[in-house]
Amino acid sequence: MSTLVPSSQEPTTQVDKTPQDQPKALKNDNPSFVLHGVDNVKYEQRPVPEPQADQVLVEIAATGICGSDVHYLKHGSIGHFVLKEPMCLGHESSGVVVKLGPEAGRSGVSVGMRVALEPGVSCRSCGLCKAGTYELCPHMSFAATPPIIYGTLARYYLLPADLVHPIPSQVSFEDGAMMEPLSVGVHSVSTLGKCKTDQNVIVFGAGPVGLLCMAVAKALGARRVIAVDIQKERLDFAKSYVATDVFMPEARGKDEAADAYCSRMSDLILSSLNIPALGPGGIDLTIEATGAPSCVQMGIHVLKPSGTYVQVGMGSNMTLPVPLFDVITKQLNVTGSFRYGAGDYPLAISLVERGLVDLKPLVTQRYDFKDALEAFEMTRQGKDESGKPVIKCIIRPPP
Amino acid sequence: MSTLVPSSQEPTTQVDKTPQDQPKALKNDNPSFVLHGVDNVKYEQRPVPEPQADQVLVEIAATGICGSDVHYLKHGSIGHFVLKEPMCLGHESSGVVVKLGPEAGRSGVSVGMRVALEPGVSCRSCGLCKAGTYELCPHMSFAATPPIIYGTLARYYLLPADLVHPIPSQVSFEDGAMMEPLSVGVHSVSTLGKCKTDQNVIVFGAGPVGLLCMAVAKALGARRVIAVDIQKERLDFAKSYVATDVFMPEARGKDEAADAYCSRMSDLILSSLNIPALGPGGIDLTIEATGAPSCVQMGIHVLKPSGTYVQVGMGSNMTLPVPLFDVITKQLNVTGSFRYGAGDYPLAISLVERGLVDLKPLVTQRYDFKDALEAFEMTRQGKDESGKPVIKCIIRPPP
Amino acid sequence: MSTLVPSSQEPTTQVDKTPQDQPKALKNDNPSFVLHGVDNVKYEQRPVPEPQADQVLVEIAATGICGSDVHYLKHGSIGHFVLKEPMCLGHESSGVVVKLGPEAGRSGVSVGMRVALEPGVSCRSCGLCKAGTYELCPHMSFAATPPIIYGTLARYYLLPADLVHPIPSQVSFEDGAMMEPLSVGVHSVSTLGKCKTDQNVIVFGAGPVGLLCMAVAKALGARRVIAVDIQKERLDFAKSYVATDVFMPEARGKDEAADAYCSRMSDLILSSLNIPALGPGGIDLTIEATGAPSCVQMGIHVLKPSGTYVQVGMGSNMTLPVPLFDVITKQLNVTGSFRYGAGDYPLAISLVERGLVDLKPLVTQRYDFKDALEAFEMTRQGKDESGKPVIKCIIRPPP
Amino acid sequence: MSTLVPSSQEPTTQVDKTPQDQPKALKNDNPSFVLHGVDNVKYEQRPVPEPQADQVLVEIAATGICGSDVHYLKHGSIGHFVLKEPMCLGHESSGVVVKLGPEAGRSGVSVGMRVALEPGVSCRSCGLCKAGTYELCPHMSFAATPPIIYGTLARYYLLPADLVHPIPSQVSFEDGAMMEPLSVGVHSVSTLGKCKTDQNVIVFGAGPVGLLCMAVAKALGARRVIAVDIQKERLDFAKSYVATDVFMPEARGKDEAADAYCSRMSDLILSSLNIPALGPGGIDLTIEATGAPSCVQMGIHVLKPSGTYVQVGMGSNMTLPVPLFDVITKQLNVTGSFRYGAGDYPLAISLVERGLVDLKPLVTQRYDFKDALEAFEMTRQGKDESGKPVIKCIIRPPP
Repeated sequence: MSTLVPSSQEPTTQVDKTPQDQPKALKNDNPSFVLHGVDNVKYEQRPVPEPQADQVLVEIAATGICGSDVHYLKHGSIGHFVLKEPMCLGHESSGVVVKLGPEAGRSGVSVGMRVALEPGVSCRSCGLCKAGTYELCPHMSFAATPPIIYGTLARYYLLPADLVHPIPSQVSFEDGAMMEPLSVGVHSVSTLGKCKTDQNVIVFGAGPVGLLCMAVAKALGARRVIAVDIQKERLDFAKSYVATDVFMPEARGKDEAADAYCSRMSDLILSSLNIPALGPGGIDLTIEATGAPSCVQMGIHVLKPSGTYVQVGMGSNMTLPVPLFDVITKQLNVTGSFRYGAGDYPLAISLVERGLVDLKPLVTQRYDFKDALEAFEMTRQGKDESGKPVIKCIIRPPP
Repeated sequence: MSTLVPSSQEPTTQVDKTPQDQPKALKNDNPSFVLHGVDNVKYEQRPVPEPQADQVLVEIAATGICGSDVHYLKHGSIGHFVLKEPMCLGHESSGVVVKLGPEAGRSGVSVGMRVALEPGVSCRSCGLCKAGTYELCPHMSFAATPPIIYGTLARYYLLPADLVHPIPSQVSFEDGAMMEPLSVGVHSVSTLGKCKTDQNVIVFGAGPVGLLCMAVAKALGARRVIAVDIQKERLDFAKSYVATDVFMPEARGKDEAADAYCSRMSDLILSSLNIPALGPGGIDLTIEATGAPSCVQMGIHVLKPSGTYVQVGMGSNMTLPVPLFDVITKQLNVTGSFRYGAGDYPLAISLVERGLVDLKPLVTQRYDFKDALEAFEMTRQGKDESGKPVIKCIIRPPP
Repeated sequence: MSTLVPSSQEPTTQVDKTPQDQPKALKNDNPSFVLHGVDNVKYEQRPVPEPQADQVLVEIAATGICGSDVHYLKHGSIGHFVLKEPMCLGHESSGVVVKLGPEAGRSGVSVGMRVALEPGVSCRSCGLCKAGTYELCPHMSFAATPPIIYGTLARYYLLPADLVHPIPSQVSFEDGAMMEPLSVGVHSVSTLGKCKTDQNVIVFGAGPVGLLCMAVAKALGARRVIAVDIQKERLDFAKSYVATDVFMPEARGKDEAADAYCSRMSDLILSSLNIPALGPGGIDLTIEATGAPSCVQMGIHVLKPSGTYVQVGMGSNMTLPVPLFDVITKQLNVTGSFRYGAGDYPLAISLVERGLVDLKPLVTQRYDFKDALEAFEMTRQGKDESGKPVIKCIIRPPP
Repeated sequence: MSTLVPSSQEPTTQVDKTPQDQPKALKNDNPSFVLHGVDNVKYEQRPVPEPQADQVLVEIAATGICGSDVHYLKHGSIGHFVLKEPMCLGHESSGVVVKLGPEAGRSGVSVGMRVALEPGVSCRSCGLCKAGTYELCPHMSFAATPPIIYGTLARYYLLPADLVHPIPSQVSFEDGAMMEPLSVGVHSVSTLGKCKTDQNVIVFGAGPVGLLCMAVAKALGARRVIAVDIQKERLDFAKSYVATDVFMPEARGKDEAADAYCSRMSDLILSSLNIPALGPGGIDLTIEATGAPSCVQMGIHVLKPSGTYVQVGMGSNMTLPVPLFDVITKQLNVTGSFRYGAGDYPLAISLVERGLVDLKPLVTQRYDFKDALEAFEMTRQGKDESGKPVIKCIIRPPP
């Protein structure tokens, strides 16, 4: 039987009542939610890890479920990351620092601190790390990604001190758990998309990542935030959340060539929303968060000259037709966004702390630790029984 | 009968013997090579134009033939630029300033000055012009591009004073005529590709534009300049010119999928040339100068993380498969290069003046004005009777 | 007798009641406020100018007075700009387009349009203009700056169509007149200072330019906007307007060396406002809007590593001591801001239109055209009889 | 008695004869040149250090002497870095890797590899390190800089594997030792100064750092490299090395104000070298490598609009008059260069490897290990007995 509680009934603030000046006693068990193979998860006890050097031990307070978690559960792999040993799931988490490694103090982290966890640990010494792009580090160790066998769906998790980011008291643990996907939005829209005030931003895909990208664009002062999706319920949600405009593409005509369809839809986006193709008022930035071929093409077509296109969505086949004629004649900047990098977590936290991004509407379901599997299933379905979009399922910590 | 003289026999310097301190007398005719329709060109007399405001009148000294000239001759249009009135052809030219408009002096141009002509005149007041990207001006008037009816295959041509670029005495008129395509290379490799010393640059396509891009990369201090082409003769030429490495892709296997083929060739480029996929020694910059689908894919695959891809080649269909998986996971910078912009001509001239780019080997054929049509035909064929590549045909001025 | 009306009594909206669908009849006089020499101004009739080419004729609706206007009145010159002929004063204005030159339509401007005037006309063809930095054009013609003899304190003013910027209906003419100084703030804080959300910005000087810089920083999402001034009234105003923090430097000790004083004050700014010298929470951006030596030094000292310093204030002697030790060891970016450039006016208008900048509190005094001289005097004094700061005096149009 | 051998008599290649395929046997002593206090150095045996984790042990092959080494010898401190314990001197070195820590292999370093040593170890986890600016790390541990007690004037030195940079066979150990100061030049001219081909660069100071900056500018394709110094011998050397132009300021008139003198000299630089103040042919980049007040002012005055100024030289008082009027009206980019950062060593090595920078003429004196003190003294004097400039003294390894 499910322990699902509707979002409106149990406020997240209850989770946060840990008195900070009275550090939690360290428990001596570490219940963990472990994937053994496709659709094969078990609750297991693992040893409580001991922080070394500059590591800190975090007691997890909340964990969000992401499409990639579901993918491992259902397929045992993503690309060339293949499950070979039992792996604890979960990587979107917040918690409380409960123990410091001998050198962890220098970074300013202390026991009792409420933190958001940055789940990837880079090597810090390759050229990409040293150039300020640690997200591209070929030696990255990422929570719940093989060959790493640790994840955050457990009582405890170890991280280097600089990868736990303090969250202020007005930011709940649930918000803290969502700093991971929000940082993806910050990386795409701010760090790479260089979104600025007064720009017009179009976001393809109104799922969790797309919505967070819209929220970041709005927070950065975008004049218009245009959501494109093929599900009316998701567009309704986007509109009620932060989008200034929404657009639902028509179905492709049965004899209509793909290119012609994409051109026609692109023209329709501009004309129906009264957006000029060129110059002031045109679209400055596209965030493509679906990986769908037609969205890629539309996303390029609708941009104004010198505009920027950021691919963040990943589909199963990502070698897709791109209108390079537009890329040339408008000298577009096309890039892709991978994970998050230097400065993204701090900015994500600041946007929430200052009320510029509101994460609360995005937590649509909550589950007890023992019901974690239900959160995976709900995330997979993407909508609840009434047809309402599932944006983010949060799992509470082990009791 | 052709007046073609092999490159080696008639040095270009002869063209330059105009004594500069003794300005040419203004002639009162203006013979012009005018396109009336597909494959329909006529030599006509047009009025000698009178420079207004800040315009200058240039007596043309040399004109290069470009693929786009040939395209208008053979098709009467390029994209939505359609010939509607008779149009003088030619846009790659150098010459001597022979008359100044009343306000032209302020820019420092004077009668007798040897100049390279920048053939596009932008509006100077739209947002794109004022932002430093006049190449994207929607109001651009470009020589020999409808609805403009003037071209440089004539005795005289009018331009605003700031669009005639002085060339020093050691730069021949033929070199001056090639500043137009060289500026395309500068725009692609330097301005947009931001090529720096020690980078490894791969150029797809060893035709005129590709070769000029290679020359610019070399001049900017590239460590390796890798030429890729499917014609051995063109690779031989590239190697003898500036390429440090060449690669000729194998033919695609008859049952081989396009994506698999492109991946296999990309791996082969890296392995056969001993180039690491990641980190130092990897490929920093791709210049794609063919517009061929397989080259686009290879050009993306071979780049190292954070690398840059510039599309400069245009084929008939430019909506092409792009491996966005690579764009995302390597956070590549993909852009397209359109014409040339602020600072490109001066840099092109400087590279030639300082001996960092040698244009002479690229002029493979020369024609008298009366034989201009032969230059178009030779450019169209792309190789001479012996199979040697035709890089650039230069047309001498009207007698 | 003065016609000064306190700000609170006459709302600016009254000025805007011109029915836009009923274009104003062109009057046949052009009353102008003309400077003949030091402290020697006269009201004169000048001919109504006729728009040529792409020019438009604007009927002025409101004009702000700036320190430079006062300087010309009191000294007849600024630097090497020396009054030689009678010159109409005024350059901060808005108005209504009343007539178009024959080619002015292309830019989209039409008769009856409410516009803010950008008073500097660059040459559009020098390297600096073409590179996107027309503010540096050596051929700039600027309203009310010798040798230009025209200014906007008149009924009519002529400008190229692209230099009149439409203002939407919710932006008053008074706001429109303030787009000029607001664009100075946009140029300093956004274009050059590259201020981003979450940054901490310190502004030295709480006069008109400093306050507008603070307003822009706030509008761009700055976390803290720290105002520094030596007048308590100005700091009070800044705090009531947009500053999050204020700091009034102590007087320099009588035996205290200048450098020691600046270091001590810099430390005091950081400690009293609880700002770390390094890292997150440190000061990202200094805007120096006083030109005072001690402020320059403090502005450099307080910055965190990699921080940015923008000099916008000009004093009488601007060769001032700069702590280059800090510039080196923190690798600071130091620059100066000159006028405004591409995109600054549109952004200024957008910030006001969207309510992100509120200009109304800054208009502290209003005068009829016939009392213009009083506005100059009040601007010169900088405070009214009760000691309250004078921020901006607006002059109404000729009746 | 000195073992000084003139540069011309003992080729550096002799140093390099270590057969690389026959790794050196590890010796069990570690003779070190240790500073105990002002002018108090002793040769001591220190333990042979053992590489931990990703560290490597390097046997030193050559060490250059730098002004900061001399400063510690003569004053016991630099700024707030004060000698408190005996400290081995030396930080400009090359050598051979002789032992690897257990995790050092991953970076590709192997025993027997010839390497240049990067002497500063950053924390790798603060915000500045992660943002790609590790040179600004507040936790930097730098060789021969208190409180670090290790230096490279010893037989052995320990470093993390990523901070030893392989040098190819054509790069001598002496060249390898000079990668440290050359990286300072790369950081100043390339990384921060963003020097590009065709730019005009002026360098104030023709000492070791200034000369290396000139060499880098030349290698990056600068059109003109202008050396300014007050010693004719140093200018002669610069001219014979890489400068295209030299300028020796006149002495300041006895009644001439400092500002007037600097303006006059700036005008003289431009007029005597036929350099326009504005536009093409103007000075794009100033490298100030003296720290002298008049040079700072001249360096700003001579720049063209939008030019860049990099302060790399440090004098005793670095709060110096800067002409901010120029900084504003030309919108200059002023910055300071601190040490070197990501990518600087690899580029330095590449420039030497490819023959674009020739370091050999800069090694003017060589000393045996036992005569190290003489190298310090010669570096301090700055010229030899015949008056010729001392650029770089190299100390051979312990026997």
